[in-house]
Amino acid sequence: MGENIPDEVMKNPALVKELADVAKDEALLQGVLMRIQESPNSSELVTYAPFTLFPSPVPKAVFLQALEVQTHFNTLVDKISQDSDFLQEALANTIEVDDFTARLFRIHQQILEEGRSQKIVLGLNRSDYMLDQRQDGTSALKQIEINTFAASFGGLSSRTPDVHRHILKVAGRPEESRQILDNNPAAGLARAVAKAWELYGSERAFVMFLVEEVQRNIFDQRYVESELWRRNIPTIRKRFDDVCGSGSLDQDKRLFVDGKEVAVVYFRNGYMPQNYTSEECWDARLMMERSRAVKCPDISTHLAGTKKVQQVLARPGVLEKFFPDQPEAVKQIRATFAGLYTLDMGPEGDQTVEMALAAPDRYVLKPQREGGGNNIYGAEIRQVLEGLKDATQRTAYILMDKINPAPVQNYLLRQGGPLTLSNCLSELGAFGAYVRHGIDARHLLPHSCHFCCILSEE
Amino acid sequence: MGENIPDEVMKNPALVKELADVAKDEALLQGVLMRIQESPNSSELVTYAPFTLFPSPVPKAVFLQALEVQTHFNTLVDKISQDSDFLQEALANTIEVDDFTARLFRIHQQILEEGRSQKIVLGLNRSDYMLDQRQDGTSALKQIEINTFAASFGGLSSRTPDVHRHILKVAGRPEESRQILDNNPAAGLARAVAKAWELYGSERAFVMFLVEEVQRNIFDQRYVESELWRRNIPTIRKRFDDVCGSGSLDQDKRLFVDGKEVAVVYFRNGYMPQNYTSEECWDARLMMERSRAVKCPDISTHLAGTKKVQQVLARPGVLEKFFPDQPEAVKQIRATFAGLYTLDMGPEGDQTVEMALAAPDRYVLKPQREGGGNNIYGAEIRQVLEGLKDATQRTAYILMDKINPAPVQNYLLRQGGPLTLSNCLSELGAFGAYVRHGIDARHLLPHSCHFCCILSEE
Repeated sequence: MGENIPDEVMKNPALVKELADVAKDEALLQGVLMRIQESPNSSELVTYAPFTLFPSPVPKAVFLQALEVQTHFNTLVDKISQDSDFLQEALANTIEVDDFTARLFRIHQQILEEGRSQKIVLGLNRSDYMLDQRQDGTSALKQIEINTFAASFGGLSSRTPDVHRHILKVAGRPEESRQILDNNPAAGLARAVAKAWELYGSERAFVMFLVEEVQRNIFDQRYVESELWRRNIPTIRKRFDDVCGSGSLDQDKRLFVDGKEVAVVYFRNGYMPQNYTSEECWDARLMMERSRAVKCPDISTHLAGTKKVQQVLARPGVLEKFFPDQPEAVKQIRATFAGLYTLDMGPEGDQTVEMALAAPDRYVLKPQREGGGNNIYGAEIRQVLEGLKDATQRTAYILMDKINPAPVQNYLLRQGGPLTLSNCLSELGAFGAYVRHGIDARHLLPHSCHFCCILSEE
Repeated sequence: MGENIPDEVMKNPALVKELADVAKDEALLQGVLMRIQESPNSSELVTYAPFTLFPSPVPKAVFLQALEVQTHFNTLVDKISQDSDFLQEALANTIEVDDFTARLFRIHQQILEEGRSQKIVLGLNRSDYMLDQRQDGTSALKQIEINTFAASFGGLSSRTPDVHRHILKVAGRPEESRQILDNNPAAGLARAVAKAWELYGSERAFVMFLVEEVQRNIFDQRYVESELWRRNIPTIRKRFDDVCGSGSLDQDKRLFVDGKEVAVVYFRNGYMPQNYTSEECWDARLMMERSRAVKCPDISTHLAGTKKVQQVLARPGVLEKFFPDQPEAVKQIRATFAGLYTLDMGPEGDQTVEMALAAPDRYVLKPQREGGGNNIYGAEIRQVLEGLKDATQRTAYILMDKINPAPVQNYLLRQGGPLTLSNCLSELGAFGAYVRHGIDARHLLPHSCHFCCILSEE
């Protein structure tokens, strides 16, 4: 949406400097904040979260496509989370080589054996895309991944539209300013959390944010907390350690932490092995999963978000299994898939390895786990695949077609960074939120949210 | 409004610590920001502006009184600014001993001689009060001063109500939370600036913020800038140096700075001698005053805000002169006056000196100039008065009854400060905004704004 910014603005250093100053202050005023690296657990000194001086244009059709398909992705994730046979089959090989996934899977199994003590499920997902540049100059929406756990930046991105509107006005581009769409994921996420809290049915119970040890990005979460308090829903922030120390289940499996009943556990931590610093953290995770508290996500939905599942979904016939009577949904979802290839042991995986070694520049090697930032590109793919001590370790990865987005020139603003024109590659993220109550899926309509983040500079 | 916070909250260290963390983050999110002392001209690192954890209660009657009398204060300031004889008489002695006031007065005289080139006057005032504790336990609204120049914190205080609402909810005091009134001085100030800009009548002309060399409090001003841009009114920020370097008047006395026509000069700098770092700064001030740009304030309104004028107004019969047919207005204004005494040379001033030396604890010695923070209390009054090399120097001060507000227990939150319960003394500030067009006073209704600042800790 919107044309690119003309060179008379883009390449006028004095104007760009002035605009950057205005943009930083406006971002700070709007609450697009981050704590600083030197003191990530203190709010005494803060800075603006990294953002681009100008908004990143997205073709309208592609944008609407991302919103439209999000409902189907919500349904898909939710269906997968209820299909234990599918999860078992999809993850069988991964579990053998990846301890972390194996551990999560054991909790999942234990919950299945005990029987779930809570029928309400809260899902807050974010599906991330890149715009693959086609020969004819158009672009295709291609999914990078779907985050079913701790999908972030819903808070901060609620305030960036006003920052960009302001900066375009100051830059003398009022028409482009008016083209910027509203965006309020924080409100949408809070609405879903509030619904889950209501269904839990205790006015005194809290929404517990299970937070990281290092909390630089706290403001992103504070938005959702503030939205909940505005609805008179109390929230608390607790770390794994707090749950270890003061958490317990009563005879009805109600979760209490620090003497407070917990209606909803909103996991913003626990997606990486290093988040579990001791065995007690795993005990705490298990206790929360076993509890009557609504989990966001529950252990099964967590597993539904693994890369391996993403890869299995790309196989012929798999989507059809989940949408037997909805060829249109299948078509819409599949249209967003890039090529995804198994690296499991066997002839199919061997073929993937050959393909990757022959043209590593065409692919991305991705670890199964959540978290981002661990992807492997180019020559390094060869190094990793050839360097594996045990060939079975390759099962811990999947291979994906590398997407080729068109770089867009922009200024990336970040604390202390230089003000230079860069070629930026963006992701488009679409949030989806839903609450299921029992077997009757009572989906909330997905709220339409968008989010552009800068992946890297070329 | 509102009762005090009960001890079960106030004296629970763990709860207070949690509330302080939540309050700081909410203040940051809401944009209650300041740059840090170490880098006052950079927005790379910012912190929350100092504020109290809990709101400061103000009796409703006193609060409404402050809003009601503000209209009369606007009228009064504006009438004084147009009464050159009064200003001359009131400031005659001050000018002899205070170079700064003398210099302002010379500009004022030059403008009178040349004839004013702009009939539109923009006034953004803030009248500050303390609540004097009476024997019967009630409190009386007593004016500390009226700021007609660069009255600040209209921006930041627009966001503090939401911070305090939030914190009271988190503290388990939802009823008190609902009692907090809305407050939006930034919008009110911007409305008046916008009106002045409109009356100036050029769509391409800018509102120029004349800003300080050291800009820690930039965010307070950015609020008003953002409000103006929202109305499609362009703003620029310039220092005296910029005006010296690139400012000029055309043949119609239109002011141009950096090639841009200036519709409104909003002075946020220039109220202290040290703001004028060179003769060129004075030249720039004169040029702006001579120009067709609307000034906020113009030189006469600047002078109307001096302490000496405040003291003269407290003399019998003076208010009546400005409100000949409005005994009610006179009564309302006078009710807010504390005792104010001249220190000019002569029998009346001699009597004031005697009074001050006899009981210095009952008074405050105030320099004529704007700026705050320079008041003299207690034993130091004696030192200053007795230490004056030349007795005529005492004319640079006025003496005022010391007001005795009841301290309120609260936690003052400021960057890096300790979290301790303090006895806090607050001021209540009421903003007033008006635009006069020619002789027909076309006052805007004063918008009702309140603002509580912490003066000092006991």
